[in-house]
Amino acid sequence: MISDTEPCDLTAVEAARLVRERHITAVELVESCLRRIERVNGTVNAIVTLVADQALAEAAKADADLAAGHLRGPLHGLPVAHKDLVDTAGIRTTYGSRLYEEHVPDRDAVIVRRMRAAGAITVGKTNTPEFGTGSHTVNAVFGATRNPYDTARSAGGSSGGAAAALATGMVPLADGSDMGGSLRNPASFCNVTGLRPTPGLVPSPATGTAAWYTLGVSGPMARTVGDLALLLGVIAGFDHSSPLTLPGDGSEFTALSNALSSSLSHALSAPDGLTGLRVAWSPDLGGLPVDPDTAAITARAPAVFERLGARVERVDLDLSAADDAFRIYRAWYYTLAYGELPQSELAENVRWNVTAGRALTAADLARAERLRTGLFRRMSAFWANYDLLIAPVSQVPPFPVEEPHVAVVAGVPMPDYLAWMRSAYWISVLHAPAASVPCGFTPDGLPVGVQLVGRPYGDAGVLRAAAAFEAATGHAARRPPLLG
Amino acid sequence: MISDTEPCDLTAVEAARLVRERHITAVELVESCLRRIERVNGTVNAIVTLVADQALAEAAKADADLAAGHLRGPLHGLPVAHKDLVDTAGIRTTYGSRLYEEHVPDRDAVIVRRMRAAGAITVGKTNTPEFGTGSHTVNAVFGATRNPYDTARSAGGSSGGAAAALATGMVPLADGSDMGGSLRNPASFCNVTGLRPTPGLVPSPATGTAAWYTLGVSGPMARTVGDLALLLGVIAGFDHSSPLTLPGDGSEFTALSNALSSSLSHALSAPDGLTGLRVAWSPDLGGLPVDPDTAAITARAPAVFERLGARVERVDLDLSAADDAFRIYRAWYYTLAYGELPQSELAENVRWNVTAGRALTAADLARAERLRTGLFRRMSAFWANYDLLIAPVSQVPPFPVEEPHVAVVAGVPMPDYLAWMRSAYWISVLHAPAASVPCGFTPDGLPVGVQLVGRPYGDAGVLRAAAAFEAATGHAARRPPLLG
Repeated sequence: MISDTEPCDLTAVEAARLVRERHITAVELVESCLRRIERVNGTVNAIVTLVADQALAEAAKADADLAAGHLRGPLHGLPVAHKDLVDTAGIRTTYGSRLYEEHVPDRDAVIVRRMRAAGAITVGKTNTPEFGTGSHTVNAVFGATRNPYDTARSAGGSSGGAAAALATGMVPLADGSDMGGSLRNPASFCNVTGLRPTPGLVPSPATGTAAWYTLGVSGPMARTVGDLALLLGVIAGFDHSSPLTLPGDGSEFTALSNALSSSLSHALSAPDGLTGLRVAWSPDLGGLPVDPDTAAITARAPAVFERLGARVERVDLDLSAADDAFRIYRAWYYTLAYGELPQSELAENVRWNVTAGRALTAADLARAERLRTGLFRRMSAFWANYDLLIAPVSQVPPFPVEEPHVAVVAGVPMPDYLAWMRSAYWISVLHAPAASVPCGFTPDGLPVGVQLVGRPYGDAGVLRAAAAFEAATGHAARRPPLLG
Repeated sequence: MISDTEPCDLTAVEAARLVRERHITAVELVESCLRRIERVNGTVNAIVTLVADQALAEAAKADADLAAGHLRGPLHGLPVAHKDLVDTAGIRTTYGSRLYEEHVPDRDAVIVRRMRAAGAITVGKTNTPEFGTGSHTVNAVFGATRNPYDTARSAGGSSGGAAAALATGMVPLADGSDMGGSLRNPASFCNVTGLRPTPGLVPSPATGTAAWYTLGVSGPMARTVGDLALLLGVIAGFDHSSPLTLPGDGSEFTALSNALSSSLSHALSAPDGLTGLRVAWSPDLGGLPVDPDTAAITARAPAVFERLGARVERVDLDLSAADDAFRIYRAWYYTLAYGELPQSELAENVRWNVTAGRALTAADLARAERLRTGLFRRMSAFWANYDLLIAPVSQVPPFPVEEPHVAVVAGVPMPDYLAWMRSAYWISVLHAPAASVPCGFTPDGLPVGVQLVGRPYGDAGVLRAAAAFEAATGHAARRPPLLG
């Protein structure tokens, strides 16, 4: 029934179907993933805590349940890994921090609970920089995560462990989170997909500290858009523990995933699949420097959308008002969340944010609110004319893994560790869904993603456009050389 | 068809039905309201800008539309008044401020647009303290609004004009807004009903200034709970101009209003109407001073709920963490929204808030976020055990209209103009729906309301409980002595 593909290389949608229809067992699937982890994790360092025995026991239970006619949910028997920022009951959760090196939570985060209730099997935790700080996955507990397409390069971050695990077939699904690009940059760097959902759609990890904070969100990562929708359908939905939660559940995305796995994907990628879609193309989001390879590759995306029937217009969009708004609210959050930790024990980037937060005044925060409110109003007018904004995810391809961050972009020096991430973090301020989808490769074989941004609450529309783009281009199928 | 009741004294639900079924005309209804305004507005000063000719012309158009078979919506032909804080195209909108004494907006606020699109006819604007500041409706442009039950007393605020207009039959429906109690306190003082909805349900007036600010919300006011649901059904729903808007429309509330006008109201107020409802009764929200009359009247509410079949428990709830959270975020908003206006032209209370906001540090704002996040988490646990919290709306009955604010509550001096409003503004911090419903009268005939608070997003549940309470008690039927 399954060709010579190893089970761990199946899409999540396929693997779930094969388990459900009992063509393969959950144990076989988990064993396949564990073999893959055994084979490549030593090189890429994506999964930093592995719970192989627990996973195998749960897989056996999943198979027994199924034999007894009990299907737990749409992820029944699927191996998954959780970002080391989300709490997992009984499984070490370090947040990438030495301060929490031995920390074992006693309860699951909401999204972990939802994934497991849907039948997913946790195989481990994925690497992240300390507290998810920065788009390069390295920390003092576990070291760096390497890019599967070039192990001398960064996997991106902060969900870099998740992206590298997905790209190498260690798991078919993984969660991530995103304040300034952490679900998008690593997807772009590792040729997988990630969606930063509209805030409130998926329970946020920030809720416990600052319940009304909207910059940090959780979201799904996967190798295909259909898989992304499958996971989103499970983790999205009302959560009474957050004031900004959205009513409803994720059934819209489950239905979309089902449709994509039957005929919708084919229909969307037909020459008229996106007819009527109004697409705005911004190569630099208003003057950001972009690496020439990245610029050349992402510049091919508009023609793809045109071939799919969309009307594409290049726009002069200036999102620079997002810069101060993001930096101020980010620094404020860091002070709030991490200001009382022993600063000397923290990574430099974390300390830098906390220090910036301590220097803020209420007037700074008022300015940030004015800036993002003004930007939101301008974007409301923009969304009256466009359904989708496309732009580079990151301004550079994967950079050398030893570098703490990108110091120069297209000849322009970056003043601090955040500056090179603007194409991602400016978008965070828009309160809008944004996906990263594979767009092509540099001459050196490094992956480059394109960013698809939708209007607030238009998450399903973004996924449909992403599925069309994915089917029309086929970049997602190129496996990392590491896998031979 | 209509008894000796004047059309302006009909409920909105009844009036809308009579217009729709062409037993009365919209012109007759508007004329009746205009006569009532003519008769009592000089005394209570509720409606500060009247557009009689425009309203009559629109009523004639509404009748013509109906004759041609075109029903605009559920408010077809209903006279309404808008709080003078919301923009009305072509109609003076002062925000209660001398600085805007001649201000005529060129477009309607979203909720005004929605009401008019549903067929409502604007008759005028209702009085408010400057920028809605404080629970006493007085300003330098129009003076004070007087309580219809005792014109020597305050109508409350900040939606005091709306409450007094409703109580006297000037209009059957009015919008209001609420940061620290402004939809609840005037309802309590004037024996009408008001609902502070869950933030995001109804487009907020604050969105233009601070789009992520959740303390200030718009909401409906009416003489009955069925009417409240009718208006909520029209003004609730997704609004692309706000990032924190909730998906969906108001159809749930329209359906509830329809059900209440048929048999639901009767069923709810039967002895088993609220069976299974878990009610928490807090007479003082954790040690707040409460006037003896107010305490005695609101203390009757638990027995009413018990008679309706609910399980009522007195709880020791301490919401005092809300105090600093509210004051800090309120002051911050005032600086942001009004800090650049010429301060010497502003009312003392507005200046006081702006000044407090200017003194804030980012650390203060972090503390406020910690406080409200902690409170939200504690309340999440609370809502696992209770469906409804009942408490006094205000800590005092209507006070003398000449007093700028309440200086002493039950013998306890109030340090500033905000302090007497705690029973209302502490609730604002909970991100929860809260209604004010008539609960009885002091020996002097002054109205006292009870506050019904639901879990976040449980707006419909609050309205059902409010309808049951209303039907079981009948206090709403007692007309102000002013009407003879």
